[in-house]
Amino acid sequence: MRAVQYRTIGGAPEVVEIERPTPGPGQVLLEVTAAGICHSDDFVMNLPAEQYTYGLPLTLGHEGAGRVVELGPGAEGVEVGTNVVVYGPWGCGVCHLCAQGKENYCPRAAELGIYPPGLGAPGALAEFMVVDSPRHLVPIGDLDPVKTVPLTDAGLTPYHAIKRSLGKLRAGSAAVVIGTGGLGHLAIQILRALSPARVIALDVTDDKLALATAVGAHDVVLSDAGAAANVRRLLGGRGAQLVLDFVGAQPTIDTAMAVADVESDVTIVGITNTPAAAQVGFFRQAYEASVTVPYWGSRSELIELVDLAHQGVFDVHTETFAMADAPAAYERLAAGTLTGRAVVVPSL
Amino acid sequence: MRAVQYRTIGGAPEVVEIERPTPGPGQVLLEVTAAGICHSDDFVMNLPAEQYTYGLPLTLGHEGAGRVVELGPGAEGVEVGTNVVVYGPWGCGVCHLCAQGKENYCPRAAELGIYPPGLGAPGALAEFMVVDSPRHLVPIGDLDPVKTVPLTDAGLTPYHAIKRSLGKLRAGSAAVVIGTGGLGHLAIQILRALSPARVIALDVTDDKLALATAVGAHDVVLSDAGAAANVRRLLGGRGAQLVLDFVGAQPTIDTAMAVADVESDVTIVGITNTPAAAQVGFFRQAYEASVTVPYWGSRSELIELVDLAHQGVFDVHTETFAMADAPAAYERLAAGTLTGRAVVVPSL
Amino acid sequence: MRAVQYRTIGGAPEVVEIERPTPGPGQVLLEVTAAGICHSDDFVMNLPAEQYTYGLPLTLGHEGAGRVVELGPGAEGVEVGTNVVVYGPWGCGVCHLCAQGKENYCPRAAELGIYPPGLGAPGALAEFMVVDSPRHLVPIGDLDPVKTVPLTDAGLTPYHAIKRSLGKLRAGSAAVVIGTGGLGHLAIQILRALSPARVIALDVTDDKLALATAVGAHDVVLSDAGAAANVRRLLGGRGAQLVLDFVGAQPTIDTAMAVADVESDVTIVGITNTPAAAQVGFFRQAYEASVTVPYWGSRSELIELVDLAHQGVFDVHTETFAMADAPAAYERLAAGTLTGRAVVVPSL
Amino acid sequence: MRAVQYRTIGGAPEVVEIERPTPGPGQVLLEVTAAGICHSDDFVMNLPAEQYTYGLPLTLGHEGAGRVVELGPGAEGVEVGTNVVVYGPWGCGVCHLCAQGKENYCPRAAELGIYPPGLGAPGALAEFMVVDSPRHLVPIGDLDPVKTVPLTDAGLTPYHAIKRSLGKLRAGSAAVVIGTGGLGHLAIQILRALSPARVIALDVTDDKLALATAVGAHDVVLSDAGAAANVRRLLGGRGAQLVLDFVGAQPTIDTAMAVADVESDVTIVGITNTPAAAQVGFFRQAYEASVTVPYWGSRSELIELVDLAHQGVFDVHTETFAMADAPAAYERLAAGTLTGRAVVVPSL
Repeated sequence: MRAVQYRTIGGAPEVVEIERPTPGPGQVLLEVTAAGICHSDDFVMNLPAEQYTYGLPLTLGHEGAGRVVELGPGAEGVEVGTNVVVYGPWGCGVCHLCAQGKENYCPRAAELGIYPPGLGAPGALAEFMVVDSPRHLVPIGDLDPVKTVPLTDAGLTPYHAIKRSLGKLRAGSAAVVIGTGGLGHLAIQILRALSPARVIALDVTDDKLALATAVGAHDVVLSDAGAAANVRRLLGGRGAQLVLDFVGAQPTIDTAMAVADVESDVTIVGITNTPAAAQVGFFRQAYEASVTVPYWGSRSELIELVDLAHQGVFDVHTETFAMADAPAAYERLAAGTLTGRAVVVPSL
Repeated sequence: MRAVQYRTIGGAPEVVEIERPTPGPGQVLLEVTAAGICHSDDFVMNLPAEQYTYGLPLTLGHEGAGRVVELGPGAEGVEVGTNVVVYGPWGCGVCHLCAQGKENYCPRAAELGIYPPGLGAPGALAEFMVVDSPRHLVPIGDLDPVKTVPLTDAGLTPYHAIKRSLGKLRAGSAAVVIGTGGLGHLAIQILRALSPARVIALDVTDDKLALATAVGAHDVVLSDAGAAANVRRLLGGRGAQLVLDFVGAQPTIDTAMAVADVESDVTIVGITNTPAAAQVGFFRQAYEASVTVPYWGSRSELIELVDLAHQGVFDVHTETFAMADAPAAYERLAAGTLTGRAVVVPSL
Repeated sequence: MRAVQYRTIGGAPEVVEIERPTPGPGQVLLEVTAAGICHSDDFVMNLPAEQYTYGLPLTLGHEGAGRVVELGPGAEGVEVGTNVVVYGPWGCGVCHLCAQGKENYCPRAAELGIYPPGLGAPGALAEFMVVDSPRHLVPIGDLDPVKTVPLTDAGLTPYHAIKRSLGKLRAGSAAVVIGTGGLGHLAIQILRALSPARVIALDVTDDKLALATAVGAHDVVLSDAGAAANVRRLLGGRGAQLVLDFVGAQPTIDTAMAVADVESDVTIVGITNTPAAAQVGFFRQAYEASVTVPYWGSRSELIELVDLAHQGVFDVHTETFAMADAPAAYERLAAGTLTGRAVVVPSL
Repeated sequence: MRAVQYRTIGGAPEVVEIERPTPGPGQVLLEVTAAGICHSDDFVMNLPAEQYTYGLPLTLGHEGAGRVVELGPGAEGVEVGTNVVVYGPWGCGVCHLCAQGKENYCPRAAELGIYPPGLGAPGALAEFMVVDSPRHLVPIGDLDPVKTVPLTDAGLTPYHAIKRSLGKLRAGSAAVVIGTGGLGHLAIQILRALSPARVIALDVTDDKLALATAVGAHDVVLSDAGAAANVRRLLGGRGAQLVLDFVGAQPTIDTAMAVADVESDVTIVGITNTPAAAQVGFFRQAYEASVTVPYWGSRSELIELVDLAHQGVFDVHTETFAMADAPAAYERLAAGTLTGRAVVVPSL
């Protein structure tokens, strides 16, 4: 079968022919219907050899959708023919965090050699992929795999970040979304669906702000040196109860901290090559503004997100590519010329 | 000044001329701009003498809006000229529950002789009313007092009932609203604003169900003997995570219990003259369905609700009356011929 | 191997010789080190044929501890030789509730033919038992299996009931425990370990109340017609924030309702042959007292409970029996002459 | 009457004779029975003139206990003769945060000229003090004012910090307390009373660690460069779910961040003259460790804390001083030679 692999440190991803895998006991074989391309792939492929720990060659793709085509011995709870998306941050399945479905935070995964597909295990950028357990599959019914596959990361990551802060998003509250790309444009929609918060979106161009408005932001603000002051002006001098930074560069983190209200959450989701950090100390931010860096989301959260998609609330912006064009999609990603999420469709 | 009073047990409310009150230390005098008429007034006026504990004559009206016209000595935190609504369930202000703004549950109020306006203290159905503390006032800015005054009870009661259950109203959840009148039609709107839950409304006529749909219900079901089965059919056999019964009669309570899912809340808000109750025991309802009867709401919840009104999310159905027509409004209330909340406007 | 089975409707449990089972794909074989005997076994064995749905013969025992002796193909996350206890309420493992570890509430279990060991699947009252997945095992290290096995039900059930109410058990709160037997004497200890609540225990004899005091109850009250008044007297007229009824008979439920404070939880855990229920309606109980009937607990809760056991906080009262004496233990259970939990040790 | 005042920038506090105050409308006059001396007084008295905003002369003392001796007109909810402690962080009483009793975060206090006693308003280091409202008083019954007055800040501040994190302090969790002085030694006791967490205390001398053990710490670790590694060794390589830093210097903040587990809270409570901050960014701390700086606590939390004191759980270490010796107490505070909290007793 064909697959997109990262094969040499510093090299570009390649489309190669590899053997079609077979599901072992408890495992499931999917025929891939759609696979998302993500900034974090780029981050990983730019790591120097001494920091790269995912093995070579690596079949890419940690956002996967597919159709169940074969069950390994003892694989139960899902049926052949079902359309699914794949929960990516696999854990041990038995520890205290996994027992709550928070496999994204499994403390045993690394020591047991368990890695997400596309980030250690063979990923979704292939005609077929093996998923290690039915528990990592979420049925999607008749939802379009292309529009749904971004939910597994570009949707799940902001969904988790928002859900943990829902208690602060009361009527009369405000949420600031910095960066309105793949994750940010979904974050705006999730905030609107889940909370009464006034949503204020920040980005660097009018085009991006127009998208933010189109997907539901109440207000948009240009992300520049005056952004924090402009946000506070919109809020009558007050701050926001939740600030989501999908960029993660020092200037956006500084803006995030400056617009956070008392008892708020500042959640850094985006990552850049240049290390950046929030400074948390007395007289630097509003009292009880809590600053954190989460990672991905839980199993039950992905199920909820698919439920939300069934309600028809999402307008997911995607650009589709045939598998042969996946390397070009990665180039466009790095160049910043994609509109919405890049999704590879093996059947194209 | 003119006021609407309940003067003799079993008698009808009367419009009378009484002395305009003066605010004492810490108190505030309002010129009333709007006052809501509520089923619970009717409940109180139908109590036999031995159960009636509110004193006579009683100036009615526990939903009040007004303009601050005078501050008693030491009354601080509000300014003359401000438009406000009145938080009704007054408490002692110092106990553990009052310290959280849950004055509706103050355990000391009764022993200290503290009663809500219109339910013991002189109410809002008058040209002027005294409010015992600035903390019981919520500024409403330029909101219309007629459309806003129902929020103080018809809005606050469902808001409180919904807010305590928000954690259960995840994406993919369902909320059932039984009774779509004064409280119910606001409950539907609050659910839509605060949560992603699918809202299913039940009532006894197509007219009322049409209103439910108009204010945002996703589905409507006729409230009859087959209602529970019909709700479960809509939900693919599952139940709802929150069931709000604004009727409180035995048949609606039975329906409520029958549509409650595992880990749900069943909240009985409505009250009828014929005592009714949910039976909670093994094999009677879904596991961990929690059944409760709340009362009104907290101070901070009313502030949040007014914030929500400022966002323009509410379509409050009201019918206005001059003070002279207040007795007629009570008659229409008892006869069930009102459309929306009856609101008395003293200036008419 | 030897096993204790329920073989004919209405018959007594019997010790029989059956074939030692083999673990299939993903399954785990345990050599049983201890198995608890529970009232619910008795409840099941007293069901008439038309209500009995667990199959015959049924190997009893839903509280199990053992040592891992064999792994089926693909069974990962646990090692041969590990001492474990068994999480009993097995679910599908993939649905929204199972994805949170709440397999006790799996809505698909029944339709998929998944039952707890000892309540449909072959149970722990045998020399060996098969557990369907490593996720249903919790390692116990060097804890004594006899003292630890009751945690899987007699501990987990109250732990879950208490944990869901912890937010209400603030400093200055009170918790009432009705029934101080197998579950109740552990509930008292869990309350003391997890919360600052004043714990008031009710039971029908001085002996049982002495046990309650010994395991940590602050106060004890005889469970009779005056119990509610006596509890309220202890609390200065106030009620309790959590009431746990481990008996579940009408008189204890009535007491539970009468001592519940505003914003409290009344949780019915015990079950009796005579159906009983709480009546929840206006003017029947304190406002916002929530009444519910939960079932068992979640996977992560059992892990937490074992962690708590490692801290040495538990004084678990047990009486051990050889397997040959299991039928006698059931007789003693029915007669109410056991002191603490009956635990069968196959190696005796 | 005598009072202890800060009268000139950079000067030492002085005992002076001033006029006994009179309570205005809604206010309460206390005869002070005990007043605590706090590090933050020292912080304030070391501010340069351009940063000092509390007015001169300033009667010190933001921890106050007293007996109600006179009520201003309209002051209700408390009776003459009652022994009370004073809730210090006064707010406007009417805004959304004050409506929840979170007056410590009132956004209007500064603009309205409302300051805590001893930090802008006349404080408790006097024979009499005026409290602006009965809602700022908590009755203490027969508790010793000397042992209770430190609860108003040295107790309330850690109580609030702990209470907001209680959901993370499950069975099997760990809490790290850095700094075991006035606040820290109470934090240890609060953690033990409210949670099952394993409490690990850090400080710089064996004496202080001995105190930590005496008041309930499970483990103690010397607070040096190896502290983080030593804490993790105690926890089998894992981190803590809550880290409270009562020192707030850069080395302790660094230790705090290094011992925080996934999904933990790092709460910086202590403040030093040299600005310090936590750096929060990718790969710097465990995922979803949340870092925050809270301030004091809420009204209901102080009530709960007094309830806890009534249960007899606290061993508050204090050193008492006559008012004439208050300046000496401040010197000892600055020199770090106090054992426990310094409390001034005007009647001595």
